[in-house]
Amino acid sequence: MTERLLNERDIAFQLYEVLDTEALLQRERYQDHSLEVFAATLDTGRRIAQKYFANHNREGDAHEPTFDGKKVQLIPQTQDAWDAFAEAGFLAAHHDFEDGGMQLPEVILRASMAYFNAANIATTGYPFLSIGAANLIRSFASEALQARFLPPMLEGRFSGTMALTEPGQGSALGDIRTRATPADEGHYLVRGHKMFISGGDHELTENIVHLVLAKIDGAPAGVRGISLFVVPKFLVNDDGSTGARNDVALAGLLHKMGYRNTTSTVLNFGEKDGAIGYLVGEPHKGLQYMFQMMNEARIGVALGAAALGYQGFQYSLDYARQRPQGRLPSNKDPLSKQAFIIEHADVRRMLLAQKSYAEGALSMCLYASALFEDQRTAETPEARRRAAGLLDLLTPIVKSWPSKYCLQANELAIQVLGGSGYIREYPVEQYYRDNRLNPIHEGTEAIHGLDLLGRKVSLNRMAAYDDFKTDVRESLALAARYSETAPFIAPLESALHTLDEVTDSLQCRMGDQIDQGLANATLYLDLFGRIVATWIWLRQAQKAAEGLTRPGISEADAAFYRGKLQAARYYLDWELPQTGPQAELLRQGNSVCFDMQDSWF
Amino acid sequence: MTERLLNERDIAFQLYEVLDTEALLQRERYQDHSLEVFAATLDTGRRIAQKYFANHNREGDAHEPTFDGKKVQLIPQTQDAWDAFAEAGFLAAHHDFEDGGMQLPEVILRASMAYFNAANIATTGYPFLSIGAANLIRSFASEALQARFLPPMLEGRFSGTMALTEPGQGSALGDIRTRATPADEGHYLVRGHKMFISGGDHELTENIVHLVLAKIDGAPAGVRGISLFVVPKFLVNDDGSTGARNDVALAGLLHKMGYRNTTSTVLNFGEKDGAIGYLVGEPHKGLQYMFQMMNEARIGVALGAAALGYQGFQYSLDYARQRPQGRLPSNKDPLSKQAFIIEHADVRRMLLAQKSYAEGALSMCLYASALFEDQRTAETPEARRRAAGLLDLLTPIVKSWPSKYCLQANELAIQVLGGSGYIREYPVEQYYRDNRLNPIHEGTEAIHGLDLLGRKVSLNRMAAYDDFKTDVRESLALAARYSETAPFIAPLESALHTLDEVTDSLQCRMGDQIDQGLANATLYLDLFGRIVATWIWLRQAQKAAEGLTRPGISEADAAFYRGKLQAARYYLDWELPQTGPQAELLRQGNSVCFDMQDSWF
Repeated sequence: MTERLLNERDIAFQLYEVLDTEALLQRERYQDHSLEVFAATLDTGRRIAQKYFANHNREGDAHEPTFDGKKVQLIPQTQDAWDAFAEAGFLAAHHDFEDGGMQLPEVILRASMAYFNAANIATTGYPFLSIGAANLIRSFASEALQARFLPPMLEGRFSGTMALTEPGQGSALGDIRTRATPADEGHYLVRGHKMFISGGDHELTENIVHLVLAKIDGAPAGVRGISLFVVPKFLVNDDGSTGARNDVALAGLLHKMGYRNTTSTVLNFGEKDGAIGYLVGEPHKGLQYMFQMMNEARIGVALGAAALGYQGFQYSLDYARQRPQGRLPSNKDPLSKQAFIIEHADVRRMLLAQKSYAEGALSMCLYASALFEDQRTAETPEARRRAAGLLDLLTPIVKSWPSKYCLQANELAIQVLGGSGYIREYPVEQYYRDNRLNPIHEGTEAIHGLDLLGRKVSLNRMAAYDDFKTDVRESLALAARYSETAPFIAPLESALHTLDEVTDSLQCRMGDQIDQGLANATLYLDLFGRIVATWIWLRQAQKAAEGLTRPGISEADAAFYRGKLQAARYYLDWELPQTGPQAELLRQGNSVCFDMQDSWF
Repeated sequence: MTERLLNERDIAFQLYEVLDTEALLQRERYQDHSLEVFAATLDTGRRIAQKYFANHNREGDAHEPTFDGKKVQLIPQTQDAWDAFAEAGFLAAHHDFEDGGMQLPEVILRASMAYFNAANIATTGYPFLSIGAANLIRSFASEALQARFLPPMLEGRFSGTMALTEPGQGSALGDIRTRATPADEGHYLVRGHKMFISGGDHELTENIVHLVLAKIDGAPAGVRGISLFVVPKFLVNDDGSTGARNDVALAGLLHKMGYRNTTSTVLNFGEKDGAIGYLVGEPHKGLQYMFQMMNEARIGVALGAAALGYQGFQYSLDYARQRPQGRLPSNKDPLSKQAFIIEHADVRRMLLAQKSYAEGALSMCLYASALFEDQRTAETPEARRRAAGLLDLLTPIVKSWPSKYCLQANELAIQVLGGSGYIREYPVEQYYRDNRLNPIHEGTEAIHGLDLLGRKVSLNRMAAYDDFKTDVRESLALAARYSETAPFIAPLESALHTLDEVTDSLQCRMGDQIDQGLANATLYLDLFGRIVATWIWLRQAQKAAEGLTRPGISEADAAFYRGKLQAARYYLDWELPQTGPQAELLRQGNSVCFDMQDSWF
């Protein structure tokens, strides 16, 4: 059984029916492009992903990176993959023409990245991080730093990382201990330990550009004293050539359950003379800058989760279509032909749930990418501001919902395959192991729940929150048009009402006692996420219902739209209603977990 | 951080407070025993588990069994573990004194097995299967077969397997193709292929006794034509010594994501002259016999899932107590001390959820073991019949609920550890990988849902179903006694009512159209499971509330009881209410999944 990479029909549906990607061609930035260019980009991405990434997805898992004390060894196909990605121009795809980029819209780039994630999420980690690091340098570093680091990063000669986490602090960045001491030459000497740094060492590129959070001596305590530094593995000479080794050392590799071909490293900075680092932007604003990369990475992680969910879904679907086993309950004749397992209702449930999670997650991530695009290139400042606000509000959900439910999708893919699901002779167990990292990468649900409820919802007098509701209601206003979408109206309207009630009551409680008020923030995140996901499915259902009315559509298109409608209905009927008991707990301010004492465990 | 094996205080609570294990001493079979004997058995189990099983849990995962075409290689500690288990008498522990056993009650044996599962579920697979195979031979094989195979199995010279599944048939046993042809000497020649046979080959024992399902030439089609055979790896001479190699060959090993130190094998029977097999009991009754072993194994798999859930819970608890990170939302002082992560409300939620799943699952499995005991040794035939009926009804739930929710517990353990959760430098990711097999081992949820709704509930005019409700209502009648248990009354009574309604409506629908009526059986299984689990927690809560009233109890006991009450309340408030939307779907006969068409995917 071949492993199909995503579903091209669905990608086209998301880009050109659910989203109006064609309209981007009207924007000044994209006036030189055409639908053909977008299609060619996606096609190139898919082909390279298939040829250079999918080819070693299993081997990279079976033969994870090793470190002999001097160099990190990766299986050699990783190098070919990196080179092919860079040569095709994907590292620079969204950059300006004048910087050597292709000036492509975000949503096209993200859709292309989905193919790479589907093919081999671990190897894709290297370019994924490099793209984010280059974006950060472009946004905030001085022209001199940009001139030195950006071209080789866009060409693929240098790669990049984000070096935030330290052994003693985890998600709480205010407590980082890495220090930066100003040196006479204008740079800083960086000293400290970083952990879980993905792509933190390897030989794929001439140089690795670490974007390091550290505190300048004498900086304020907490998050307000964090600065951002460029700390390359090798120093770069004025002529651009690679110079001496910087004082950055690989202390060791961590051994992960999934994503194995991405090195996860412990790095020591400055154990000898201090690692030379270059301040990005102003002192003490490092976290603010880093949030750009983190927020991009959050959508990227979610997209990776979606792609893994998608692969598991499609593989288990193909398996269910080919695997005969048992008979329907109504068939008591042991001599009759075995049924294919897709004929068993519970297998269809598991496939439909996977479809709702995976295609819902892909749709959610591409919607977020469109917001990302709009915040930069929408026609009016008001439209840009509105998109930025929505993206900021929804990022915790766009990160968390796909990571949580596409892992569940992979769990269901294993279940569809039965015993074949848990053996390494089949691919779905690896998807599941790979995907287990995503609910932790770029912030756990706990972190995002606190961010959503404690900060994002109330920003700007809840402007983005209100915009979200406006957009959902706009969809609902159109839902009566089709018999297939009309059933969404009452439950989704009621869910919005519940969301308001719950949000109000939690905000009240937080005003009173902040710790109690935020105690169930993860539950709030899931409730809000289910509402967003239902809306994401309503948007797809509307386009599917519309599509079905087109005269003379092909049988394949009709089946595709029917599938969308069924998956949407599944989500509406089977998943949204769980917000009922969730809302009840939140309204009560249920304190069972909050009240639990350490000694009682 | 050491990995504690389960919690001795909890085991004692389950055995002597929730269950009345002491009362077993009144039964004739156990009159020579005492509480000291029970305690010594558990203590021996725990010590051997710690010394000989826990010692290589990770190494067995890292160095899985290999096959060089001749022999299977296991890491050598596996042999020591097998020997220690056998020498301590656990293979024969529940057998009669006169058969060399210790005549121990089921519940004591199961509690001991929980320690082995907690220490190393993969190595425990070998004795676990051997115990089941020996039980089957003792129950149904002729005296001659018993005389030949039972003593070496109880001593640990021979091990056993269950060989059911074949490559082309999976869970549908009626379609097996393995054939048995009568030979002149009174035995049969068995020919066919078996797959996913755990412990199907290894060098731990002189001989391996396969209990094989096969069809005698000319047998009826389907499950009514299945017979059971003893097919040893080596023939056994009349004097008991091991003779020539039988025609059973290892075709290869399967490579699992977890449980790695248990070999999972593909076996070829009779590729040369036919494998010599001995019929167990009567022809065509094999499946009926095998159900004894399967039902025992179902509780055993659930107990293994519970033990893994328990280990992940305790490890993540210890981690949360020692790991400083961040501060409470109310603390804005970046210079203040970091909080331990157990102080964060969402970490307590994840720990409390794990506690409710793991301790709930352990309690559920021991309750089932007590039913197993009662069906054999309760005083009156009526009590034995009643226990057998309840056990039969609840086995699908006792198998499925722990397997599903203790996997979720392990997922939460990873989440508590964050990045440390997904790296192999910490143990929780292995628990998660090991546990992913349990929702498939011994029947998927789909199989058990169909069994529960399609068969078990309606057996004997719903006698067992009614007995279950009677027992829950008996608990509810006592719940008003304590302020901590009173909150269970209304929701659990209402849930029972819902269960009745839903069961009625589904049975109606099944009468009409069996395929539609059974389409949502997995959902019914989960709904019913949540109700059983709530009752299991109510039972514990009652004993905890009672315990708290005992004058002069220790601080440790008081904290233990408070923890039980809090976990019970968590389950009542956070988990039971999800039956609301489930019941609604079942009442509607929601057909979204049933109606989904292959071509729409």
